[in-house]
Amino acid sequence: MAEFSIDTIRHSMAHLMAQAISRTWPDDHIQFGVGPVIENGFYYDVDMEHRLTEADLKTIEKTMKKIIKEKLPIEKKVFSRDEAVDFFKEQKQELKVELIEAIPGDEEITCYQQGEFIDLCRGPHVEKTNQIPTSFKLLSVAGAYWRGDENNKMLQRVYAVAFKDKEELKSHLHFLEEAKRRDHRKLGKELELFHFEKVSPASPFFMPKGAFLYNELVEFIRRLYRKYDYKEVITPQVLDSDLWHTSGHYEHYKENMYFSKIDDREYAVKPMNCPCHMLMFAHYKYSYRDLPLRYADFGRLHRYEKAGAVAGLTRVRTFCQDDAHIFLELGQIQDEIMKLMDMFFICYDHFGFTDIKVNLSTRPEKKAGDDATWDTAENALKAALDASGHEYFIKEGDGAFYGPKIDVEIADALHRYHQLGTIQLDFQLPDRFNLKYTTQEGTEARPVVIHRALLGSLERFIGVYIEHTGGAFPFWLAPEQAVIVPVRNESHLEFAEEVKANLERHGLRIRIDDRNESMGYKTRQTQKGKIPFMLVIGDKEMEEKSVSIRKYGERASESISLEELTEKFVSLNEERLPEKFRDS
Amino acid sequence: MAEFSIDTIRHSMAHLMAQAISRTWPDDHIQFGVGPVIENGFYYDVDMEHRLTEADLKTIEKTMKKIIKEKLPIEKKVFSRDEAVDFFKEQKQELKVELIEAIPGDEEITCYQQGEFIDLCRGPHVEKTNQIPTSFKLLSVAGAYWRGDENNKMLQRVYAVAFKDKEELKSHLHFLEEAKRRDHRKLGKELELFHFEKVSPASPFFMPKGAFLYNELVEFIRRLYRKYDYKEVITPQVLDSDLWHTSGHYEHYKENMYFSKIDDREYAVKPMNCPCHMLMFAHYKYSYRDLPLRYADFGRLHRYEKAGAVAGLTRVRTFCQDDAHIFLELGQIQDEIMKLMDMFFICYDHFGFTDIKVNLSTRPEKKAGDDATWDTAENALKAALDASGHEYFIKEGDGAFYGPKIDVEIADALHRYHQLGTIQLDFQLPDRFNLKYTTQEGTEARPVVIHRALLGSLERFIGVYIEHTGGAFPFWLAPEQAVIVPVRNESHLEFAEEVKANLERHGLRIRIDDRNESMGYKTRQTQKGKIPFMLVIGDKEMEEKSVSIRKYGERASESISLEELTEKFVSLNEERLPEKFRDS
Repeated sequence: MAEFSIDTIRHSMAHLMAQAISRTWPDDHIQFGVGPVIENGFYYDVDMEHRLTEADLKTIEKTMKKIIKEKLPIEKKVFSRDEAVDFFKEQKQELKVELIEAIPGDEEITCYQQGEFIDLCRGPHVEKTNQIPTSFKLLSVAGAYWRGDENNKMLQRVYAVAFKDKEELKSHLHFLEEAKRRDHRKLGKELELFHFEKVSPASPFFMPKGAFLYNELVEFIRRLYRKYDYKEVITPQVLDSDLWHTSGHYEHYKENMYFSKIDDREYAVKPMNCPCHMLMFAHYKYSYRDLPLRYADFGRLHRYEKAGAVAGLTRVRTFCQDDAHIFLELGQIQDEIMKLMDMFFICYDHFGFTDIKVNLSTRPEKKAGDDATWDTAENALKAALDASGHEYFIKEGDGAFYGPKIDVEIADALHRYHQLGTIQLDFQLPDRFNLKYTTQEGTEARPVVIHRALLGSLERFIGVYIEHTGGAFPFWLAPEQAVIVPVRNESHLEFAEEVKANLERHGLRIRIDDRNESMGYKTRQTQKGKIPFMLVIGDKEMEEKSVSIRKYGERASESISLEELTEKFVSLNEERLPEKFRDS
Repeated sequence: MAEFSIDTIRHSMAHLMAQAISRTWPDDHIQFGVGPVIENGFYYDVDMEHRLTEADLKTIEKTMKKIIKEKLPIEKKVFSRDEAVDFFKEQKQELKVELIEAIPGDEEITCYQQGEFIDLCRGPHVEKTNQIPTSFKLLSVAGAYWRGDENNKMLQRVYAVAFKDKEELKSHLHFLEEAKRRDHRKLGKELELFHFEKVSPASPFFMPKGAFLYNELVEFIRRLYRKYDYKEVITPQVLDSDLWHTSGHYEHYKENMYFSKIDDREYAVKPMNCPCHMLMFAHYKYSYRDLPLRYADFGRLHRYEKAGAVAGLTRVRTFCQDDAHIFLELGQIQDEIMKLMDMFFICYDHFGFTDIKVNLSTRPEKKAGDDATWDTAENALKAALDASGHEYFIKEGDGAFYGPKIDVEIADALHRYHQLGTIQLDFQLPDRFNLKYTTQEGTEARPVVIHRALLGSLERFIGVYIEHTGGAFPFWLAPEQAVIVPVRNESHLEFAEEVKANLERHGLRIRIDDRNESMGYKTRQTQKGKIPFMLVIGDKEMEEKSVSIRKYGERASESISLEELTEKFVSLNEERLPEKFRDS
């Protein structure tokens, strides 16, 4: 078999699928739209009477494999444009005719034929159908407007994944399975973390367990803030458009903002905290002794996103960032970036992200500020990254017009990268707000501003983290850390309550499952809820002052004394603080 | 001297003041508006060329006392309306003419004359000017539109306080002095807690110390929530008007809401959390076993208030309530109210409020729900209040149309009452949202809802609490708990840092003041900042491993060992949890 590229193979598979569909429903007047190669596979848009079902996909696959065995040669045909139009008109392939008519008149039109099936196509293709491997799988059918225009007819789009060999296919199908199992929207519902309502699109309602997670993440970040000398502030959410003119958001970001008229003044709900922090800095007189000054804010932000662009927690209209703005002297950048990188790696490591990509984006062509300032800033960023000892990639010219940027991507358990942290230098905003501080020499100078976030949006992070952990959160973060199951309520509930009270005295989060259900049911429920530990209490345990403990995901259980249990849980709970800070 | 009521005396004083103003500026064409008695005193609105100053008030007071000594008889004169109009026209008192013209034509008009001064007045008055005591004080001058209409002329309003005797006046002036000293707007600035900006009227910017206070109050309430089994949730802020129609807010509360159009849908920024919690309850299937279910929310709310109505933190446009909604069965009301009263008293006591007034408002004439339900609810509230053992007042007919209400007022250090807590029963909202739960019998029933808040708005509470404490917060709540002052940095800074690190290891909040300033200056600054403790470290302390400790507001300092210091601070810091819950 000649070596064909995976794209060529996928492309030939798309034709193969279209041919199989034609053969399966010979009496349906089927018209074909486009059938391109996409990441990991291909799709084809078809217009037909019959509504394709899951079962149909299996049938089509079978027919595809049959055609492969027929070893049909795949032949290229060249037409003039008019010939092609005539030919596809005759075939009653009106969609193809539309496609051809959009091609300039003097261009050659190529088609590929295999057996009875001929399709408009640039190629290239494999030479015979038996050169197509069977390592494909039809995944799903979805509606898609012809040419992506909602005024056009809705077609049926058949999606397939395809790889060079069965090994690769299998591994990808496993990945898809795993991604589906971990889907944060699904787990969010199952674990009663959050849900959505029609009256507030793309705005999550966090139920008690989700709100716990949310607040605990805020507390985690606050613990880091105490170590790195950040000062939390609380700022308004609804601010006069004057402010957004000053900050430049009105000019550049208006489309994403919510406006409201009050007392004949136009206000906007804030999409970002920065302008509030600029006002705060301007309100007081600061000197070089106060810098770097770090304002952190967990203010709720609102950004309009098109209904089509929103998805679960990862793209929402309202969220909160672990946002901070650092006011500092130009000469302090390198030190500050080193501190930030330290904080970033401690933070990501704490959540079990070890595969981390750091990117440095440098000055773009159109930029604010002079080259000398950019030199200083970029060199400071590079020096800090070098000193931090982590590999990093330079994205030349990819910085914002107002300053260079570092961004940090983490890979989740399925090796998907997500951008979490950003460090954005800003020479522009301090100018717009005319910020000043007194230097050591007693003169006035303009501070530099760093915008930075660790987790980014808390909502998005929760989405990513649910998928990373599959909803099985570490002990310190689990909304419920253990469920106690008394074997018989009459005999064991009282002791269970004692155990619970004792653990709660150490700030632990314990629930008793005293429902009138079987032990098997309760065990399954505890597993389904992904509770870190199940503690069973029966006669033996009561007598020995012990519990039978079973860890989430494990089948074995062991008996441990109440003292050991408390010690174990208290020690696990200490992981809420990163190891580096744990002794202090 | 005959016994005159304080109102009569104050009224005569107002005439006396007007007469004194006329005598002091005989050449100014002075017109008088109205001069009513108000709480603690009186005012008079005057229209004159001369702008009254603080110094003028002293002069007027002197003249008033002189007229008192003149023992002028105060005589009542009766006019017909037309005679009165003619008389005051002649006197060129156009404002008085306007007032008289507004009186029905057949009414008798009375005036009072003392010496050369005659004023339109219903009376009664004292009989001679020497029956007026000198226990008054002119306080201030403010602008006031004639008849409160901003289209009219601005007059000068002279405010005065007046009491029966000098003792009462002195005590009231002391109160005013104290209230001014404790004014939360003034202290908010001085202690760098918060400030306001023009771009966001009536919306506080909480600086780091203010934000600390704010977050610590939230944490305090959360600690109570853990004890009383509340579940915190997080809900969206921008919701479709459909929801506000369902909840009834659109109909009844529209004027106070902020609206925004997006994607041709009308959204409002939430003024209350309740509708979100109703949606949450409706989203899941609950049974009697889940009730009472308590959703707590620290969501940011926005309510439009007229620019004239807002003031400091006590009346703002954006705030957060320690809000919760309790879903329960009718039969559970009494128990729940008892729990709530328990929680309320523990909470207020913790903040040092001991003078507490409880009011119960019963069914109004126009009401939703049948009498049987109201009977049950009101009786349950009464029974719970009786059982809680606190005195309470019944406000007959003062309940909301959707249910009876308990509200709780606390007296601050200046004996001013502020309403903090409310418990509002609601039969209406569960109907509007068609809420249901499964009863023990397996049937469907409508839950009752209780809206309740402990501190009310956090912003307002902070305002009240700053004035209650004069900004000297208890140790557990102070943003900075102690300042360490090394006598000489060169010799003592290192040890100071050791002491600081040791205290911080126990979660304490310590600052070192190592500025190049005198000990006297630093001491004054620490006092001004109302920091609970100042710790001075010199040679002796370093040698003895001790600190010299001085409590805020005291002059004496004592030397204590580092162990004693740590023990003292850790123990004081435990007061962050109410005593009742401290051992557990």
